[in-house]
Amino acid sequence: MDFKIRPARKEDCKDVSRMIMDLAVFENVADQVKISHEELERDGFCQNPLFECLIAEVPEEHKSKDGFTVVGYALYFYTYSTWKGRSVYLEDLYVMPEFRGNGIGKGLLSKVAEIGKEKQCVRLQLSVLDWNTVAREFYATRGALDLTETEGRHLLRFEQLNMDKLAKGASKERSFD
Amino acid sequence: MDFKIRPARKEDCKDVSRMIMDLAVFENVADQVKISHEELERDGFCQNPLFECLIAEVPEEHKSKDGFTVVGYALYFYTYSTWKGRSVYLEDLYVMPEFRGNGIGKGLLSKVAEIGKEKQCVRLQLSVLDWNTVAREFYATRGALDLTETEGRHLLRFEQLNMDKLAKGASKERSFD
Repeated sequence: MDFKIRPARKEDCKDVSRMIMDLAVFENVADQVKISHEELERDGFCQNPLFECLIAEVPEEHKSKDGFTVVGYALYFYTYSTWKGRSVYLEDLYVMPEFRGNGIGKGLLSKVAEIGKEKQCVRLQLSVLDWNTVAREFYATRGALDLTETEGRHLLRFEQLNMDKLAKGASKERSFD
Repeated sequence: MDFKIRPARKEDCKDVSRMIMDLAVFENVADQVKISHEELERDGFCQNPLFECLIAEVPEEHKSKDGFTVVGYALYFYTYSTWKGRSVYLEDLYVMPEFRGNGIGKGLLSKVAEIGKEKQCVRLQLSVLDWNTVAREFYATRGALDLTETEGRHLLRFEQLNMDKLAKGASKERSFD
């Protein structure tokens, strides 16, 4: 199937927002999604965007059963390793189920790697859920190391409430000079 | 013990670089550190810095046995959640062993949370190694969720070689319009 991969434009945010929700439904966490397409437009298409995004698009004649031509996305941003330097982090990679098996996911992933290299990134990181064996195999086949399995690396999160508590404990900047 | 926490300045990068190496030695991966203080200066103190850093400093009379007054650091950057929006990621938090037990680690963590909140971040994330029980307890006590345990989230990495292979597979931007 013919498809193309291109940088997302502001007007793609409705499609990206729709697919973010599809992915959250698949991961059984639809209730966690608090981001609207307006927020994606604001955060991704400003002076210093908080993320970058690629989309996969099919021609009109191959549109989805619901009439969509934007059928996949990869959303990523830049991070930093104190061992290696600039890195790229793939937050989401998604292809609509009816379009899988056509190399679209591979195309999106490769493009993120290519863009990362252009920006001097030395590694590409992401996270997967352990029960998502299709995704785990997809990445493992292409050489991804599972740092949770090989190094015992665990991902931790302070949600808003506990982050607020931490912040309240911050002391004013002190000086002893 | 008296200490203060303040934003790192360019001239602190030698101290930060020294402690990055201390932390890597503790994690048994000293051979992985490829970053010099010159690179930290370039990447953290430019027009669009790739990270931000706080340091903990003690008065001259409490300097370390090797003569250091910069005794801890927290290095962090901003990321993006497609469910929640702007987030902060704590890449490293370190306090020199001889200064532990004085609230310096807690002070650094709280300050990162406070800065994150000022920047409208809704969550604070980080990773820990499973055998580092002291760190895991430190974060758990303060309300961090272990996403690897609760959700089965695994962290994956493409190192440079496999990232290069991926990038080589990226097709030129195609058009069917």
